[in-house]
Amino acid sequence: MSLEPLSDLLIEPVVRSALAEDLGRAGDITSQACVDPEARLKVRFAVRQDGVIAGLDCARLAMAAMDPALRFSAQRRDGDRVEAGEVLARVEGNARAILAAERVALNLLGRLSGIATLTHAYVDAVAGTRAKIVDTRKTTPGLRMLEKYAVRCGGGVNHRFGLDDAILIKDNHVAAAGGVGRALERARAAAGHLVQIEVEVDGLDQLDEALAGQPDVVMLDNFSLEDMAEAVRRTAGRVRLEASGGVNLATVRAIAETGVDVI
Amino acid sequence: MSLEPLSDLLIEPVVRSALAEDLGRAGDITSQACVDPEARLKVRFAVRQDGVIAGLDCARLAMAAMDPALRFSAQRRDGDRVEAGEVLARVEGNARAILAAERVALNLLGRLSGIATLTHAYVDAVAGTRAKIVDTRKTTPGLRMLEKYAVRCGGGVNHRFGLDDAILIKDNHVAAAGGVGRALERARAAAGHLVQIEVEVDGLDQLDEALAGQPDVVMLDNFSLEDMAEAVRRTAGRVRLEASGGVNLATVRAIAETGVDVI
Amino acid sequence: MSLEPLSDLLIEPVVRSALAEDLGRAGDITSQACVDPEARLKVRFAVRQDGVIAGLDCARLAMAAMDPALRFSAQRRDGDRVEAGEVLARVEGNARAILAAERVALNLLGRLSGIATLTHAYVDAVAGTRAKIVDTRKTTPGLRMLEKYAVRCGGGVNHRFGLDDAILIKDNHVAAAGGVGRALERARAAAGHLVQIEVEVDGLDQLDEALAGQPDVVMLDNFSLEDMAEAVRRTAGRVRLEASGGVNLATVRAIAETGVDVI
Amino acid sequence: MSLEPLSDLLIEPVVRSALAEDLGRAGDITSQACVDPEARLKVRFAVRQDGVIAGLDCARLAMAAMDPALRFSAQRRDGDRVEAGEVLARVEGNARAILAAERVALNLLGRLSGIATLTHAYVDAVAGTRAKIVDTRKTTPGLRMLEKYAVRCGGGVNHRFGLDDAILIKDNHVAAAGGVGRALERARAAAGHLVQIEVEVDGLDQLDEALAGQPDVVMLDNFSLEDMAEAVRRTAGRVRLEASGGVNLATVRAIAETGVDVI
Amino acid sequence: MSLEPLSDLLIEPVVRSALAEDLGRAGDITSQACVDPEARLKVRFAVRQDGVIAGLDCARLAMAAMDPALRFSAQRRDGDRVEAGEVLARVEGNARAILAAERVALNLLGRLSGIATLTHAYVDAVAGTRAKIVDTRKTTPGLRMLEKYAVRCGGGVNHRFGLDDAILIKDNHVAAAGGVGRALERARAAAGHLVQIEVEVDGLDQLDEALAGQPDVVMLDNFSLEDMAEAVRRTAGRVRLEASGGVNLATVRAIAETGVDVI
Amino acid sequence: MSLEPLSDLLIEPVVRSALAEDLGRAGDITSQACVDPEARLKVRFAVRQDGVIAGLDCARLAMAAMDPALRFSAQRRDGDRVEAGEVLARVEGNARAILAAERVALNLLGRLSGIATLTHAYVDAVAGTRAKIVDTRKTTPGLRMLEKYAVRCGGGVNHRFGLDDAILIKDNHVAAAGGVGRALERARAAAGHLVQIEVEVDGLDQLDEALAGQPDVVMLDNFSLEDMAEAVRRTAGRVRLEASGGVNLATVRAIAETGVDVI
Repeated sequence: MSLEPLSDLLIEPVVRSALAEDLGRAGDITSQACVDPEARLKVRFAVRQDGVIAGLDCARLAMAAMDPALRFSAQRRDGDRVEAGEVLARVEGNARAILAAERVALNLLGRLSGIATLTHAYVDAVAGTRAKIVDTRKTTPGLRMLEKYAVRCGGGVNHRFGLDDAILIKDNHVAAAGGVGRALERARAAAGHLVQIEVEVDGLDQLDEALAGQPDVVMLDNFSLEDMAEAVRRTAGRVRLEASGGVNLATVRAIAETGVDVI
Repeated sequence: MSLEPLSDLLIEPVVRSALAEDLGRAGDITSQACVDPEARLKVRFAVRQDGVIAGLDCARLAMAAMDPALRFSAQRRDGDRVEAGEVLARVEGNARAILAAERVALNLLGRLSGIATLTHAYVDAVAGTRAKIVDTRKTTPGLRMLEKYAVRCGGGVNHRFGLDDAILIKDNHVAAAGGVGRALERARAAAGHLVQIEVEVDGLDQLDEALAGQPDVVMLDNFSLEDMAEAVRRTAGRVRLEASGGVNLATVRAIAETGVDVI
Repeated sequence: MSLEPLSDLLIEPVVRSALAEDLGRAGDITSQACVDPEARLKVRFAVRQDGVIAGLDCARLAMAAMDPALRFSAQRRDGDRVEAGEVLARVEGNARAILAAERVALNLLGRLSGIATLTHAYVDAVAGTRAKIVDTRKTTPGLRMLEKYAVRCGGGVNHRFGLDDAILIKDNHVAAAGGVGRALERARAAAGHLVQIEVEVDGLDQLDEALAGQPDVVMLDNFSLEDMAEAVRRTAGRVRLEASGGVNLATVRAIAETGVDVI
Repeated sequence: MSLEPLSDLLIEPVVRSALAEDLGRAGDITSQACVDPEARLKVRFAVRQDGVIAGLDCARLAMAAMDPALRFSAQRRDGDRVEAGEVLARVEGNARAILAAERVALNLLGRLSGIATLTHAYVDAVAGTRAKIVDTRKTTPGLRMLEKYAVRCGGGVNHRFGLDDAILIKDNHVAAAGGVGRALERARAAAGHLVQIEVEVDGLDQLDEALAGQPDVVMLDNFSLEDMAEAVRRTAGRVRLEASGGVNLATVRAIAETGVDVI
Repeated sequence: MSLEPLSDLLIEPVVRSALAEDLGRAGDITSQACVDPEARLKVRFAVRQDGVIAGLDCARLAMAAMDPALRFSAQRRDGDRVEAGEVLARVEGNARAILAAERVALNLLGRLSGIATLTHAYVDAVAGTRAKIVDTRKTTPGLRMLEKYAVRCGGGVNHRFGLDDAILIKDNHVAAAGGVGRALERARAAAGHLVQIEVEVDGLDQLDEALAGQPDVVMLDNFSLEDMAEAVRRTAGRVRLEASGGVNLATVRAIAETGVDVI
Repeated sequence: MSLEPLSDLLIEPVVRSALAEDLGRAGDITSQACVDPEARLKVRFAVRQDGVIAGLDCARLAMAAMDPALRFSAQRRDGDRVEAGEVLARVEGNARAILAAERVALNLLGRLSGIATLTHAYVDAVAGTRAKIVDTRKTTPGLRMLEKYAVRCGGGVNHRFGLDDAILIKDNHVAAAGGVGRALERARAAAGHLVQIEVEVDGLDQLDEALAGQPDVVMLDNFSLEDMAEAVRRTAGRVRLEASGGVNLATVRAIAETGVDVI
């Protein structure tokens, strides 16, 4: 699978508001004072540490928003593995414009590459198993679309984008509905035919109750490895299983080897 | 010094756009399916790990934006040190509204408290020295105002908010202006009388050149501890000194003990 | 299943921009000229023709946005079947505020109720069959969320909210990917685990090819009733079938009786 | 009279927000999965049914907003009468960009052309009389400017754009002011010298009272054909007369033949 | 004629963006440093110099936007004549909130009252003549609605609000259309039935040509007093006449006495 | 010191919203009626009265926003002294686009040049003294950035851009803190290390108290010339002194000659 870039149309508003935030009410007063208006500059964006790249389009659009005449050329592509010291991109043109856009470009590139790199570490750790690595809704307000994209750059898969694109029944919902079975019933009745239903269970008993309700996905919350393996056996492929809780780079491989579909 | 909360007027747009991002085009379809419209809920926000709190107003405003009738009561205040398990706030009211706003409230509270906690660790490490801990412009696009506030909650002090509120002369500017002295001269001529001028130097020689230009602050970039101490001696309080580069929790105490003003 | 109202947070921006559009640059100059500032008014919103109601919250919020002191009381609820002449809601308070908000309130109420009423006619027509009525993305720019809600008020079910919440493979995509099978393969590899995959087929041969690719839903495009029935037989419940093309109130019952799941 | 296109500056925000609404938080995931990033496409926009075209600039701007490199060439112009099957426009370029923008382009083109076509049917029906066809404020929230433009494309004339650009005295205002004469007096005193005053009357008696107040336009609300003709006689060209109520394609010709100015 | 206040809905966005502009990225740091969070304050808005008041609602909304709990009580109303030293309004509540909103409140109140006062001086100068004082489109970007309102507070009448609400044919248009007569013909054909047509003429010859085209208003551009008087005679009330050019407080009375309708 | 232009990125939103305000809901209906769609025009922007120019980029961007194909060429630069009759800029291209953008271009150019010209008169008046002319926060809501820029064009220096970029202690703050000394103490404790502290004093006694607190700037509020001169003596260069109150073109020279730094 190739990695699909986001449309500029979706990125541009984020980049522009980040620039406006940084330029404030008078722009880059240091460059205005110290750099001649016509001065030119060449800058290279280099990799700080080994990892996976995400956000090159953000950097390109930050430069273009400050000055459409800047020449930006990417040397690598989002999703590429890179080593410290490699050149990611070059930009050349008006010095003031480049200096003014640089911080925003680096902030976005750094943050998204960090997410991609971390995601990739998890993906690497489970290589050879059937498990896919997914993200959460614990994203930065205003940047969810970009952070979810960075997860894809790192080889991960996206979970829900918001409260509106899948049903995820948690303990509060179960309590409110009066049990796992009743919650699934209500969810099935309310859901559009393209909406998937996932339910969180906290033990094997609740798993059985959930399976009877035919959800699309079951999330095993804080299961021991043994219980997880047992859950895989009981489910026998009827629904997808998602492991949640206690996941870190030290534990993820063992979790994946239980046979769950998603972590 | 007491900690000063941000005006709701400044926080509300961030909170509302975060909610809109999460609610998407159909709202919280899980609660719509599983929770009765009139159901009520009480939720407690508890501390996950020891640290310093920041962002309680964000949590309050997220709840109020979903439903002005929710009753939110904070048990602690931003800037307080808290221990894992403590209750930060309670909210009570319509169950659907609380569940819909919960993720946004927790995302902001968690991110800002994390910044406050980390800042505080640095502040603690330099306790008893004259050094103050300051932040950078490496913030999340769209959240700079809140993240700078979280630094203050942690006992830190804010550096520039943007490119427009102080002059900070770095190597590129020095090169463009033709030397540290010439850059400071241009900066002084261009600056408003309320604008401070800071210059970055990379060695003791450049420090001498900078001092001749009478900046308000000099940033010592990647100085050894010995050179830093020597810089403090040479400067003799005429300008404030700021240490930059190679700062982490292991090194910060020794840096502070050289006598610099800001780290 | 009860009908779930949209959050005010999602409706308010639409209502406010509609009011701003109508008030223009000087507000309601007729009422300013002819109605005393303190004059009071009672208005009843009555049903023009039999149908299903949608949009009462829009009307309420339009009144509240003009003047929070207006007293709006709904007599019916969205999704209710109503007869011409029935009173839907009453509003009482400052006359100028009510007159200024009235057109916006009626425009939204009328448009959404029209959609709900038409949807309900289709839902009625297929009563007793297993078929559900779904909508399309042929919505009014800026009002998709509300129009999709009106479909739910009429008893229909929502299809995709946008290009991003399900994969729907059409003829162009099949052509680009090199066949239905290849397109489904690529879709399965790219899709997150909560994303459903639907594929459009234009004949029974293509249906067989599609079934081999295990989509979640197959859309039968412009099938004859006979072919549709045959498709139901061949599919045998393995995927959901959606009928598309040539659907109107005269044909929908016969289509539903072929056994398709969604129309 | 030639038809005047709207400035791109006025259309672009509508088109961009429609695209954002459709692209959601991840863009067109179907094309991302099934269509190669470099694939190219040629698409023709063809007429579905005989009518009058409106909205070609919307289609062009939707394509340009997704990808400025797309080549869009209109074959016809807004306001043209077209027959089913005719090609309106061609677009060529990156396949993903075209597929992502297509729905928005078609939604706007279809909606506006529908309005233009219906308007034109009324204009045709009164051909040869002095009557002009005008629109109302019953427009879609957010699209009034475009829908009013479509009315002009169909040969109609625009009534008020909002509450602020003409005075239109209706029954509520008459009641509040204490009679038609008193309402007109107040309107005349309050109106700027470029603001026209229109008053609605519900019978011949009220017409006489209105004429005494010298409005610019009188709206005859639900008059019989006989009363309308009598109104034309009594008015003798002193003010313009507008017929309202009970207007449809079956009745509009007879109404126009009474001699009213505007319907 | 009583003066009609603008709806809060129209004023609020202006006030909020003015506050955001002033609060910047950290709010009122002086009050945060020097004023206790719970301190209370009473402030009186007093008149600086004799004049006419406009903008009290702006001041009220600025206070309410900072803190809904502030108690604002206006002692006078927009449009009132006031003398230096009089108290316009009182506000009481949280000291920080009042100090933060004060500058924005005063800026709007001062600017709008200045416009109202100047307008009133012109209106006073022509008292007893038939002439009305009107404004122009030379307004501050973003504040046109408020500045036009201030003109009304001063007793003036509004000219066009924008390029879209009346036709005003100037020399460039006459040249483009090929003469005054041809321009009026084209305008009449294009205008909606509620749109007034005004034409600018630069001499008595052009006036005659204009009168033949039956505009609603003729603007006499830089006419001498004699020519103006002659224009009034020739027109004999058939159209309204507007004097333009060389108008100031010293000349306006004589201009009004020529009998023109609008200045 | 050369004058530094603002980034287009900062100006464009102001220009676009000013155009939208002027175009309203139907655009320039006069040009639509009277000017052929393909007609071309050449326009020269000429100086009305002697002064200093500011805002040429606003004019250029207004034209570009209406039609990117317009050719705009500036003959002078912001900050230049110009004489009545001089040509500032030429624009050539589509006639309708130029006519539609002209008012907005002129409004911004006129307002900003007026500010630059007035500022320059003050700067001229104090030529040869050490005093610099600074501005205030009494700016037009929404235009502060541009108006501050115009002050720089006129040779002035900017004071605070908002409440957040320097501490300015006034009488209310002194009262709230309990004296000048206490207020300065609190300010010093709260301020970031790049934030300057200014304090307002109303007499020589308060000056002495202020000097003890070591502010960066002291504002002498309504001092007599004698007291101002005495203040300069007492201060002896330890802090900068700013004169405020009673400043106009007749008094500014004498004030400057007392030796204050800023007026």
